[in-house]
Amino acid sequence: MEIIRPRTLSGFMELLPEKQVYFEKMTATLREIYGLYGFFPLDTPQIEASEILLAKGGGETEKQIYRFTKGDTDLSLRFDLTVPLAKYVALHYGQLTFPFRRFQIGKVYRGERAQRGRFREFYQADIDIIGDGSLDIINEAEIPGIIYKTFSALGLKRFIIRINNRKVLNGFFRLIGVGDRAGDVMRTIDKLDKIGADKVRTLLIEETGLSADTAEKILDLISCRDRGEDPLEALGRYQGQDPTLDEGISELTVVTRYLEQFGVPQDHFMIDLTIARGLDYYTGTVYETTLPDHPEIGSICSGGRYDDLAGYYTDRRLPGVGISIGLTRLFFVLEDQNYLNPALTPSPADVLILPMTEDLGPAIAFATELRNAGIRAQLHCEKKKFKQKMAYADRLGVPYVAFLGEDEIRSGRVTVKNMATGEQIQVSPAMAVAGIQEKIKETRLVPPIGEPAKH
Amino acid sequence: MEIIRPRTLSGFMELLPEKQVYFEKMTATLREIYGLYGFFPLDTPQIEASEILLAKGGGETEKQIYRFTKGDTDLSLRFDLTVPLAKYVALHYGQLTFPFRRFQIGKVYRGERAQRGRFREFYQADIDIIGDGSLDIINEAEIPGIIYKTFSALGLKRFIIRINNRKVLNGFFRLIGVGDRAGDVMRTIDKLDKIGADKVRTLLIEETGLSADTAEKILDLISCRDRGEDPLEALGRYQGQDPTLDEGISELTVVTRYLEQFGVPQDHFMIDLTIARGLDYYTGTVYETTLPDHPEIGSICSGGRYDDLAGYYTDRRLPGVGISIGLTRLFFVLEDQNYLNPALTPSPADVLILPMTEDLGPAIAFATELRNAGIRAQLHCEKKKFKQKMAYADRLGVPYVAFLGEDEIRSGRVTVKNMATGEQIQVSPAMAVAGIQEKIKETRLVPPIGEPAKH
Repeated sequence: MEIIRPRTLSGFMELLPEKQVYFEKMTATLREIYGLYGFFPLDTPQIEASEILLAKGGGETEKQIYRFTKGDTDLSLRFDLTVPLAKYVALHYGQLTFPFRRFQIGKVYRGERAQRGRFREFYQADIDIIGDGSLDIINEAEIPGIIYKTFSALGLKRFIIRINNRKVLNGFFRLIGVGDRAGDVMRTIDKLDKIGADKVRTLLIEETGLSADTAEKILDLISCRDRGEDPLEALGRYQGQDPTLDEGISELTVVTRYLEQFGVPQDHFMIDLTIARGLDYYTGTVYETTLPDHPEIGSICSGGRYDDLAGYYTDRRLPGVGISIGLTRLFFVLEDQNYLNPALTPSPADVLILPMTEDLGPAIAFATELRNAGIRAQLHCEKKKFKQKMAYADRLGVPYVAFLGEDEIRSGRVTVKNMATGEQIQVSPAMAVAGIQEKIKETRLVPPIGEPAKH
Repeated sequence: MEIIRPRTLSGFMELLPEKQVYFEKMTATLREIYGLYGFFPLDTPQIEASEILLAKGGGETEKQIYRFTKGDTDLSLRFDLTVPLAKYVALHYGQLTFPFRRFQIGKVYRGERAQRGRFREFYQADIDIIGDGSLDIINEAEIPGIIYKTFSALGLKRFIIRINNRKVLNGFFRLIGVGDRAGDVMRTIDKLDKIGADKVRTLLIEETGLSADTAEKILDLISCRDRGEDPLEALGRYQGQDPTLDEGISELTVVTRYLEQFGVPQDHFMIDLTIARGLDYYTGTVYETTLPDHPEIGSICSGGRYDDLAGYYTDRRLPGVGISIGLTRLFFVLEDQNYLNPALTPSPADVLILPMTEDLGPAIAFATELRNAGIRAQLHCEKKKFKQKMAYADRLGVPYVAFLGEDEIRSGRVTVKNMATGEQIQVSPAMAVAGIQEKIKETRLVPPIGEPAKH
């Protein structure tokens, strides 16, 4: 038979088993934490009619989309989870209860140019809260609490949730007379962290064509934090002059007011007047989450408030707020930066059972006892030498190996070896189950991410 | 703006939120149970190079496949999880530890004609154990234990695991001189349950062209159970006459020997000499799982032993054993037959919190306390009348509603209403947390499937 060289497409993540254990632990954590906030799980098809996915049309999206026909149908792979959500909410509107809260973790597809750390198939992990006609600001205030708990549960310690409000930016720009160039200005001030205030000033004057005075006003506001000034205080100086700005300030105030009650520590949060998150979709609060030790990674969790989720599919006004984690890229950078927790043992079993007699009955019964107690047990009955079987246990990283030889069976016991310490004890199966159960309880709680010691 | 009518493609399952909760509970259960048996989780791309997926080529598969080009690349959506596994094992051979045990739950695609209960996008939930050169028979014996525990954990009670062995069939057919027509004979005897012994006899003689005597020998063997005879005993009469048959009998004997130790009750298991599971892939034990109350559904979990997983991609001999559950179809038929457990409350939250004061601080702090204790809590702060808020709680099926009015805040308490009983108590937040935690413990254990009362 002719052999076809096996390969995986470039831009498609395919992990080795041990790495996959980390990834699964991350998705399990996200499902658990998102669930704590009253979100329904949701799953929608990965293929939609092209006319649905491309309702908005144009731009990068259309170029990157995986589009094809099957029979007479023009189909596309989804490129995000938001457009399918919009379709879902419009289609099933009558059967949903609003505010409708859902999370979805699923693969999306973008035919981007392949490069290191860029994926064509990747997981997004989204939450959204959709109102019917209106949605209270407190939903926007809740999001930082969810972000904080999610990343903390994943095991991340040093991260900053940054928020801003589009109304603040839009109102302020209009107020100082640059409302017509808001987009250009936003793109420029977004670079503040990277290139510094002086270069931003130069760009605002030379490229965007602002007066030195206007540029100074902008810099004065967005760099208030460098002077140790609270952004809300700095904004206060402009209050009462533009209704949109006032609304933005008031929203920003509510969103920051309950941080403590939402469980977000002060040092994990900041108002950052430079973030804007794209130009046309978000209308209120916007969120980014960054790692202070790795600014080059950019935001690992972003989102915001929007006023019209599903305008392409329904006349109903469906405002919402949502965030998205690009899980595949996040996993890639965390692994790349040594953030995978070495304390997590990515073993597929807690116990490897090695029967040493012809009659496998007692060994199998012990395996069943372990599994009934929620302990992950694997039987190893291959015809191999003892040394090879121990090497197998080593390679899998199994924490315990149980032997059942004639001695053990005669005395109704099992020998259990702790692979980390080398300690070996002979006990009854029931005692072995209880002992192992107790010890693995802690290991179940080990988070998938652990920050490298150098930090 | 022009409105595009939202729709979901036919043949693509898209569940309402409450139904999705059941589905998620099923996949969570599968992950948990598969994990107990020492399987690594695995995830492979949904898109592969067409040359990889179609290495085997021809037949129904090629017609049904979703195939397209992106740039210059000829791509296909996977149509099962076995071919990607074969590629994975061949590609990463050097980095895997054998026997390699993995489970995978993922979507696959087949462009079948759309009809009720047939899906073009559907989940498969597979486990496989792959050996390097050889794989002990005990792995085949373990599979019924996994099937039993999986469906029991899902909440199913009445199901039968049927096994057979291809060597038994092949050896027996050769022995009685119909080895060259084994395929035709298997397809015919497979109909025994449906059309009965007399019609099978007629078909074997008139269509397959067997002599009356040969047809009788076959019927005598496969209907042994109707006479109350153990299939292993019936097979015993042919022992020592064909080496393949002898091997099959010996394997069947091992696979049935440890059923009790593997935790499989006698009444959930049978040797069924009529099942064959396709013609060229399986080489030893084969499995089917059926619902005695719904024979029309066919097998809900099938698989078997194969000798050569990845022959298209590598020269190495990689024998294995695996089973697959077609999860989307299974969910469809279970829902259709009223098997979704009414005792499971598909609510997105355990507690809905209704703040009754302007200051939301205490309500938010209470929500955070609940979440930190692992209780799913949702804040409801929309500007609605009290009655509407209670209707919202009702529609979501939330078991508890907590009120925080001025009275409660002044006395440092919360009012908790049990929505099922109508009972309402005022307690400290800590006591509310403890009480709810205790009560929801049981609800977490409710399985997604419950058999309709009529059975």
